[in-house]
Amino acid sequence: MFNRILLTHGSGGKLTHELIKTMFVKNFSNSALNQLADSAVCELPGKKIAFTTDSYVVNPVFFPGGDIGKLAVCGTVNDLSVAGARPLFISCALIMEEGLETAVLEKIIVSLRDAAKKANVKIVTGDTKVVEKGGADKIFINTAGIGIVYSKARLGTQFIRPGDVVIINGPIANHGMAITALRKGMQFETKIQSDCTNLNEITGALIGSLGKGIKFMRDATRGGLSAVLNEVTEGRAWGIEIDEKSVPVDEPVRAMCELLGFDPLYVANEGKVVAIVAPESAEKALKIMRRYKDGKGAAIIGTVKPGLKGRVELKTLMAGRRIVDMPVGEQLPRIC
Amino acid sequence: MFNRILLTHGSGGKLTHELIKTMFVKNFSNSALNQLADSAVCELPGKKIAFTTDSYVVNPVFFPGGDIGKLAVCGTVNDLSVAGARPLFISCALIMEEGLETAVLEKIIVSLRDAAKKANVKIVTGDTKVVEKGGADKIFINTAGIGIVYSKARLGTQFIRPGDVVIINGPIANHGMAITALRKGMQFETKIQSDCTNLNEITGALIGSLGKGIKFMRDATRGGLSAVLNEVTEGRAWGIEIDEKSVPVDEPVRAMCELLGFDPLYVANEGKVVAIVAPESAEKALKIMRRYKDGKGAAIIGTVKPGLKGRVELKTLMAGRRIVDMPVGEQLPRIC
Repeated sequence: MFNRILLTHGSGGKLTHELIKTMFVKNFSNSALNQLADSAVCELPGKKIAFTTDSYVVNPVFFPGGDIGKLAVCGTVNDLSVAGARPLFISCALIMEEGLETAVLEKIIVSLRDAAKKANVKIVTGDTKVVEKGGADKIFINTAGIGIVYSKARLGTQFIRPGDVVIINGPIANHGMAITALRKGMQFETKIQSDCTNLNEITGALIGSLGKGIKFMRDATRGGLSAVLNEVTEGRAWGIEIDEKSVPVDEPVRAMCELLGFDPLYVANEGKVVAIVAPESAEKALKIMRRYKDGKGAAIIGTVKPGLKGRVELKTLMAGRRIVDMPVGEQLPRIC
Repeated sequence: MFNRILLTHGSGGKLTHELIKTMFVKNFSNSALNQLADSAVCELPGKKIAFTTDSYVVNPVFFPGGDIGKLAVCGTVNDLSVAGARPLFISCALIMEEGLETAVLEKIIVSLRDAAKKANVKIVTGDTKVVEKGGADKIFINTAGIGIVYSKARLGTQFIRPGDVVIINGPIANHGMAITALRKGMQFETKIQSDCTNLNEITGALIGSLGKGIKFMRDATRGGLSAVLNEVTEGRAWGIEIDEKSVPVDEPVRAMCELLGFDPLYVANEGKVVAIVAPESAEKALKIMRRYKDGKGAAIIGTVKPGLKGRVELKTLMAGRRIVDMPVGEQLPRIC
């Protein structure tokens, strides 16, 4: 093996094959992948699928609480999960910069493997490209994912009604602030960790128990909680009212946001699902979430209100009100 | 709209949404995509699927006979096709460099759209990331694809027997030489065009007509024809004998290869399928291929021979023999 990735590793020849065997097959091993065919051939347990893709360009690639590999599995697993699906298969395509240390790559591969194992998904197909030094920044990962939609799932903004309740599974803004702390060299003081995790257990349990009682789910990533809520309310006669004192924010995260002038509502998460549920299902949804490690901090944070005309409004700690807009500028580039 | 892509277009906020609506929804419009949910929800006509992914980093992004958009659809469609599947759904994830001209992006999006239409697949889900200037080279595209495996397909190297016949649907090395000519400023003299195209019509017809008579298919991309043949023979008791005079190479491509010292067997293609068929199916396979525009130049190029112990051998024009190895070095970085 080489200590660094060479252009030849992306040529489709001998070194590409060596890399695939010593890194991917070794770590991801499963019957579909090991064929090393142009496509993985898989049997699905149903015909109604969810299909998603995301590229990950996070910088730096290693951060407190995770790395680009863990992120690439969790992010795609979560996109399938909030669509009401059970994630099954993941693809993994790497774009690497010539000169990337093989040890760095291996650490990321192991992280992809462990995250896939934890989320109970199989990495069944992949691709490797290498671009010349300076043509890309270290490593970018794309994952696409396939899941089977639960037969009990009936999700969509069209099912939301005034009176429905907005729930989140824990404190917000940890991922964005962990990356920011790292970039600013503040990570040792703050010890803020990314919340990067897979949400498929929580979402599967919610759908299994609540059925039609759960109307909508989305993971709050780039753009934070505010982007999700604004996407939900856009063009509707109703709106969402959020109660600031109910929105969970860890103390070090809140302190750092204040110090740097960030609004936690706009900061990225990588393990937070926003669920909108019928009022009679709200307490049950909370209980289900709290059964899981990543749902211990679950909270009811707001309500769907008639007459707000597509707006998201925040009842502030001072009992004032302000509109929470869709994020406009770029707070933190390459956060995921 | 802006003339150039800004970091904010990748933030998940207002500009990301504007970009998605004005570019992706406008051009790719279909019921699954238009939901703009975290995942596309699709109904499959069967449960046995093929799933594949590839990232495209070709440089330059526009070239004679295609561009990165056309390539990204055709490459993934072809990986599904040679696995014996009917391609149905494609994902499309873009990594763009800050400052990319919006006009360039739009041209690529239109090309993705047209290629998807021609191949009869739907682009149902996507992602947009923007990295700072210098963090990536213009644009990288990842596509993943899902297809349904034809019930008549029975493909795999394990079905290959000595006596089977190796067929290709047309002349080799056009894609690699088109890109090389462009890079060297020779494109006006040579007029070589990339062979970039979708192969799903040809492969579907082959499986439909030949059933078990067709043993194996693979598209010869990076690493060229030699990489495919070496992958097939690796670890087998038998080998493959290729007849140099039967391997179709267009005259300008051959001339340019000679001039620059390339062996066409190692040069990339983007619209060539290598099929290994039972001897009694060979003539029929040729006829089927030749019905299609991209199969007019189809030819029988070799035979599976006992006793070659995993080797690929070439019967040269001079009636000599030489071993065709797996490609080792990097002839042409960022060819796809």
